[in-house]
Amino acid sequence: MSFYDQLKFDANGLIPAIIQEASTGRVLMMAWMNRASLEKTIESGKTHFWSRSRQKFWMKGETSGHIQTVKHISFDCDGDTLLIQVEQKGAACHEGYKSCFFRSVGEGKSAIRVTEPQLIEPEQIYSKK
Amino acid sequence: MSFYDQLKFDANGLIPAIIQEASTGRVLMMAWMNRASLEKTIESGKTHFWSRSRQKFWMKGETSGHIQTVKHISFDCDGDTLLIQVEQKGAACHEGYKSCFFRSVGEGKSAIRVTEPQLIEPEQIYSKK
Repeated sequence: MSFYDQLKFDANGLIPAIIQEASTGRVLMMAWMNRASLEKTIESGKTHFWSRSRQKFWMKGETSGHIQTVKHISFDCDGDTLLIQVEQKGAACHEGYKSCFFRSVGEGKSAIRVTEPQLIEPEQIYSKK
Repeated sequence: MSFYDQLKFDANGLIPAIIQEASTGRVLMMAWMNRASLEKTIESGKTHFWSRSRQKFWMKGETSGHIQTVKHISFDCDGDTLLIQVEQKGAACHEGYKSCFFRSVGEGKSAIRVTEPQLIEPEQIYSKK
């Protein structure tokens, strides 16, 4: 049985992929893949996703240069989630943070803290010159 | 603006929660929460989820004893994914492994490897005596 046969894509043909920095264990982001983007990820060694909002195939870093080089791919017991360990170039988050999970809940439910420095201003990442 | 107002629950009122072991950075599992299960998680300090297959509210470890004590809650830039760091008692996976992500893809697409030891037989966790 091939790897793909062990996976359960949802009704839209998608599976969530948790992206973790291999060297630090930091969870960087979660995004969605369809079978084609997963195949492309495995073939190229760079993460590729399916954007649900834009209905578009995309390679992480195609605009920003902040690519992810795949180190390790695992999948969960139910076969409905991927965990992909990568080497991250620059900031994983489009808001300029290393990780998309840069905000945390404090003791009170309304106390939200930013827990890491912004590496780069988004305008610097996506400016079109 | 409260924490909950920053979150985007999907059309079914759900949000995926990545569960990570706080002490090691190991990603243990991913499961889904609705607002009530997230509130219960915050109030009790133990993870609670919504089972999509069983359409049922559940506390992790309610049958197995393998509870998760919450250490830290963060959320991503889009507000549509949670990252919850926990202290895990026993095995997070119902198949008896520490992490649900115990299988990896090797070099060939069909080469699947089990990458960690099974801590306990599932029958030992869920036997009804």
